[in-house]
Amino acid sequence: MSVQPPRTRPAGLPVDLRSDTVTRPTPGMRRAMAEAEVGDDVYREDPTVRELEEQAAALLGHEAALFVPSGTMGNFCALRAGAPVGTEVVADTDAHIVTYELGGLAALGGVQTRTLSGLADTLDPADIAAQLRAFPVAHNYNMVRTSVLAVENTRARAGGRVWPLERLDRLRLITEDAGVVLHCDGARLWNAAVALDVPPRRLGEIFGTLSVCLSKGLGAPVGSLVVGGAEHVERAREWRKRLGGGMRQAGVLAAAGLYALRHHLDRLADDHRHAAALAATLADAAPRRVHPERTETNMVLVDVPDAAAFCAQAADGGVLVGLAGPTTIRIVTHLDADDTAIRRAGDVLAPLLNALPPAGS
Amino acid sequence: MSVQPPRTRPAGLPVDLRSDTVTRPTPGMRRAMAEAEVGDDVYREDPTVRELEEQAAALLGHEAALFVPSGTMGNFCALRAGAPVGTEVVADTDAHIVTYELGGLAALGGVQTRTLSGLADTLDPADIAAQLRAFPVAHNYNMVRTSVLAVENTRARAGGRVWPLERLDRLRLITEDAGVVLHCDGARLWNAAVALDVPPRRLGEIFGTLSVCLSKGLGAPVGSLVVGGAEHVERAREWRKRLGGGMRQAGVLAAAGLYALRHHLDRLADDHRHAAALAATLADAAPRRVHPERTETNMVLVDVPDAAAFCAQAADGGVLVGLAGPTTIRIVTHLDADDTAIRRAGDVLAPLLNALPPAGS
Amino acid sequence: MSVQPPRTRPAGLPVDLRSDTVTRPTPGMRRAMAEAEVGDDVYREDPTVRELEEQAAALLGHEAALFVPSGTMGNFCALRAGAPVGTEVVADTDAHIVTYELGGLAALGGVQTRTLSGLADTLDPADIAAQLRAFPVAHNYNMVRTSVLAVENTRARAGGRVWPLERLDRLRLITEDAGVVLHCDGARLWNAAVALDVPPRRLGEIFGTLSVCLSKGLGAPVGSLVVGGAEHVERAREWRKRLGGGMRQAGVLAAAGLYALRHHLDRLADDHRHAAALAATLADAAPRRVHPERTETNMVLVDVPDAAAFCAQAADGGVLVGLAGPTTIRIVTHLDADDTAIRRAGDVLAPLLNALPPAGS
Amino acid sequence: MSVQPPRTRPAGLPVDLRSDTVTRPTPGMRRAMAEAEVGDDVYREDPTVRELEEQAAALLGHEAALFVPSGTMGNFCALRAGAPVGTEVVADTDAHIVTYELGGLAALGGVQTRTLSGLADTLDPADIAAQLRAFPVAHNYNMVRTSVLAVENTRARAGGRVWPLERLDRLRLITEDAGVVLHCDGARLWNAAVALDVPPRRLGEIFGTLSVCLSKGLGAPVGSLVVGGAEHVERAREWRKRLGGGMRQAGVLAAAGLYALRHHLDRLADDHRHAAALAATLADAAPRRVHPERTETNMVLVDVPDAAAFCAQAADGGVLVGLAGPTTIRIVTHLDADDTAIRRAGDVLAPLLNALPPAGS
Repeated sequence: MSVQPPRTRPAGLPVDLRSDTVTRPTPGMRRAMAEAEVGDDVYREDPTVRELEEQAAALLGHEAALFVPSGTMGNFCALRAGAPVGTEVVADTDAHIVTYELGGLAALGGVQTRTLSGLADTLDPADIAAQLRAFPVAHNYNMVRTSVLAVENTRARAGGRVWPLERLDRLRLITEDAGVVLHCDGARLWNAAVALDVPPRRLGEIFGTLSVCLSKGLGAPVGSLVVGGAEHVERAREWRKRLGGGMRQAGVLAAAGLYALRHHLDRLADDHRHAAALAATLADAAPRRVHPERTETNMVLVDVPDAAAFCAQAADGGVLVGLAGPTTIRIVTHLDADDTAIRRAGDVLAPLLNALPPAGS
Repeated sequence: MSVQPPRTRPAGLPVDLRSDTVTRPTPGMRRAMAEAEVGDDVYREDPTVRELEEQAAALLGHEAALFVPSGTMGNFCALRAGAPVGTEVVADTDAHIVTYELGGLAALGGVQTRTLSGLADTLDPADIAAQLRAFPVAHNYNMVRTSVLAVENTRARAGGRVWPLERLDRLRLITEDAGVVLHCDGARLWNAAVALDVPPRRLGEIFGTLSVCLSKGLGAPVGSLVVGGAEHVERAREWRKRLGGGMRQAGVLAAAGLYALRHHLDRLADDHRHAAALAATLADAAPRRVHPERTETNMVLVDVPDAAAFCAQAADGGVLVGLAGPTTIRIVTHLDADDTAIRRAGDVLAPLLNALPPAGS
Repeated sequence: MSVQPPRTRPAGLPVDLRSDTVTRPTPGMRRAMAEAEVGDDVYREDPTVRELEEQAAALLGHEAALFVPSGTMGNFCALRAGAPVGTEVVADTDAHIVTYELGGLAALGGVQTRTLSGLADTLDPADIAAQLRAFPVAHNYNMVRTSVLAVENTRARAGGRVWPLERLDRLRLITEDAGVVLHCDGARLWNAAVALDVPPRRLGEIFGTLSVCLSKGLGAPVGSLVVGGAEHVERAREWRKRLGGGMRQAGVLAAAGLYALRHHLDRLADDHRHAAALAATLADAAPRRVHPERTETNMVLVDVPDAAAFCAQAADGGVLVGLAGPTTIRIVTHLDADDTAIRRAGDVLAPLLNALPPAGS
Repeated sequence: MSVQPPRTRPAGLPVDLRSDTVTRPTPGMRRAMAEAEVGDDVYREDPTVRELEEQAAALLGHEAALFVPSGTMGNFCALRAGAPVGTEVVADTDAHIVTYELGGLAALGGVQTRTLSGLADTLDPADIAAQLRAFPVAHNYNMVRTSVLAVENTRARAGGRVWPLERLDRLRLITEDAGVVLHCDGARLWNAAVALDVPPRRLGEIFGTLSVCLSKGLGAPVGSLVVGGAEHVERAREWRKRLGGGMRQAGVLAAAGLYALRHHLDRLADDHRHAAALAATLADAAPRRVHPERTETNMVLVDVPDAAAFCAQAADGGVLVGLAGPTTIRIVTHLDADDTAIRRAGDVLAPLLNALPPAGS
């Protein structure tokens, strides 16, 4: 989110629900990091990084994977590997890649973005197909070619909503027909898999390339992965090096990622349960401000008259929430927020919401 | 348009209605070019270029103008002068700048485009305002800043439709509030002014920057102008040089532009009359394929089952029309198509349309 | 040159020797432009442009050519067609492409330049070969690949000096071995051919790509050409469109270029004779400030204590000269400077030089 | 280096002297990482990262520092913060930034590089000054402006040689006069400080910006720092985010960096002693192939007839050395190579060198 609440916190640890990026590594994860076997990954000699890359590729049904320091870099390397300079990536108007990545695809990569509203829901798939400008360059003299269609799953700005599987399967066919790469910004793909109750591979195989994060719901301190075919990943590796994402004994981070894949995947269901409970509590307090049926994974969006003011009030009460827009706050559940914390958040936020003027009045 | 009809033409000169870019300079214009006083414009010493720049700036109510070899370069220089690397230009999903300029804004300029559907009509102005992400960079750490809102008037892909004046005035207020530059891709701004029956200045003053063409409806062989404030235009000049758009004795071209501004502005009404007549004729032949009420300036769009095949048939009959999509052809009236030519076009195209299966059946 | 002399000129037409870019089209050239057959060159339908492109390609021994509005765009399109993003162009430290083109190769094209001193003379060819980093990308993980070696002939910043033919032939072998494209910035290639008394083809065939100008010694008002193999030129065409260099009825300019190739090529010998005469005159006046043996084509460099002051003094006397550095002025002969003008320049400049303190004292 | 020796290693751990990047974190460093207090550094809330940044800034005499995942990203962010698009960075022909960073400055940043030979030694400072093209843009229309002069200390491709202090002080004055930023690629700045026996601050204060590494001689697994004025570092932070270098609980890595600064700075003297000893041993074996007087820090360069073949032979003997060119190998001493390892390296390499044909024969 663009603006963060004030950092002065009340005495006692606040409940921090601004984002699932705030989690701290668990003792088990710390231990795994401390004991990791490492090597120079720029020379491809770090065994822990290689193990993580191989596991992630297998888990998502692809040939290869590449460890990168962030989701932003993961998206860039994956997208740029499929999108030559002067082509375009089609994405949702609200996509993370055109909202929160400082314009890197254009600024660093020379790749145009063209955005469509309702990519995940309201737009007719035939209309999406019609928007893909894929053709042999030789037949053309001035029209931009679409090289990649990018979807985001779960969708951050929509409050963690999950793409319907059949819609994704449909996009796969559409992009295959058009000769366009289908990419997934899977910062929270794990949440989608848990919410849909399918193995990650079921989602992974739909796409030509993915970027998935270890540092959000999974709770690792640092790291994401580019996943795809071997050639794609090799090109992504060149871009990673150029961006300065080549790290030396990166196994110390990869060990946390491996630990997270082993221990924190299934527990995402707890986060979803927490978010649903919180949404229900808050909807009781302010029915038209919260829509529990839209909480499909680990996020709750709340409409308020003044989001910055509400953030500050909540922080005074010991609960940190995120600012998702001038009149929208975002609450995100995660590994570091247990039942008690969620209850406390409800206890603080419900009265604050209840005290607001009724929505829509 | 992306794909052109075959270039083999029947005996006798065909009527070429593919685009208003195909016009040849008139004898008067040729004479003006032959007699132009010139100098080295890279040193800013070409008197004819300077005269053209001053006249264009005055005509549109701005401080300065800059002569460039094409509308693509005009848009790039104007937009890049207002949009730093890593910021975004918001535009219509169908805008020329994201469709027909080979992704230059991103590829050459490092500037992101985010596109909205219905910018010119269906989208609520308040929703447009909400999409402009304008804020002090200091308050932010990852959100792209919107630097420019770009509109296109008339709108090429909509068949030459004109923006309602009051909607433009509204966008001016919205962008002023947001601290965002309002840019006009005015390749056919002159047609809009004639259609609205307002002086060009009435349209020009709405915008922070404009790019306007001399080579379409106005009939000059080469050239466009960046128009705006003095500082903006000075930055555009630096970009023009970097792009290789600095020309030496460019007065030979500017003379044609001056001639066009003097003699070809008012006559655009003829093109509009021709387009309306043609639309009516074709709608008679195929009512659901042509919508005369949408022909506001010099273009007619026609829905056909197979646009490439239709183009070829029309060419066989001696009429060249443009391909605007797989099932859309585009007919454009201009300086080189007189009453006779327009009648001939109707005579050839109407039976072809009439012979098609009924639309929507 | 970076800074130009003051533009206030004395009564009477000054002799303008700042650059050979200042020439005005001759009456014959004007007539050719006025009578040119034209079409829409963006659709590749301008017969005069096509004729010029074909003639230029043939004249230089290549498959194809592309008309562009400037030498800067010619260099960019030719170089970028051979240099993918993230590769490097090796050039002379003083090359025009790294001095006077506003950094476009990097800024617009994402291509690195690495510069060597003495490329044209002092550097051992074996050392040049050692500097070319050409290898299969697969064997590498962080080293920039050299894609192009660029030379400039004649060399603007060296005062119009000509590359020795055998050195160019040697570079051709070196670059062929290395799998690197050899490019020529031939803004004044015609001068080199005349100075060497070889047909342009003898020089053209050495290179993989060239950019040659019609607007300097040849005296056309606007225009340059990219010359090379058909595939290279097709890629250059795409870049031209992206840069906004696609012009419509460009035949009005191409006609001047064709005229220039027909009538102004051989007469470059006059410019060279004029430059030699002027160099001799000025060397008589100030022996250590002018080196006539370095005037191989149409330029004379003169060392002065304060170049800006000298330019101003010369302008007061009715002679415009260029500023090539803080203590260097540049005099360029051309089509618009006849015997009388050259004598007048000598009459004005010699006493000014003579009045300076002796060089080196 | 571009190509690495084969990775099949003999039984028993080889002595790995390919680079000082291969070191593994020590037990103490691992402990520091395991115990690090962390937070979300993208929100600037990781206390360990902040502590590292503050310590590094203080150590080098600057206002601020920024933790980044690699030296490549450190150089890019620091340079790009000082070099707007379309300006140029002047650097040594052999600089790491133009050799081993995949052309990122141009490819990602749109910044031109112009390279000079002998920047560190043979080039006269007055000639360096003359190469800086610094001037108000307003006075110019086509000349690239020099924004940054970049030096590298120690110089990797020169075998770890150290810049003379007085030469750096001189460059500081030259760049201040010219209004150009003086940047230091200080991947091995710590080695330079130890070799010169000056505090790092003495070197740091010379520069406007620096990039320094924690992962080479200092032995941390991952990480570098951008160091400079507060505004410069803030701009670098924006570029870090865009590149995808913003990491979440990066304190786990910063803890290693802090440990390294505390415990591994002074011990670089051991590496230098080891390199000197090895250079002496090898020079005994092959006097004209090794130049001990050029080993000023932790590297030894050796001329061999076929570097790839020599690397393979050495690897068979249990010693890994780096490939620095077709006929040059590079040996680098570091934290993981103790007295025994260095002796073993000498025992293996000396006979191999001795068996080669005499150099220069």
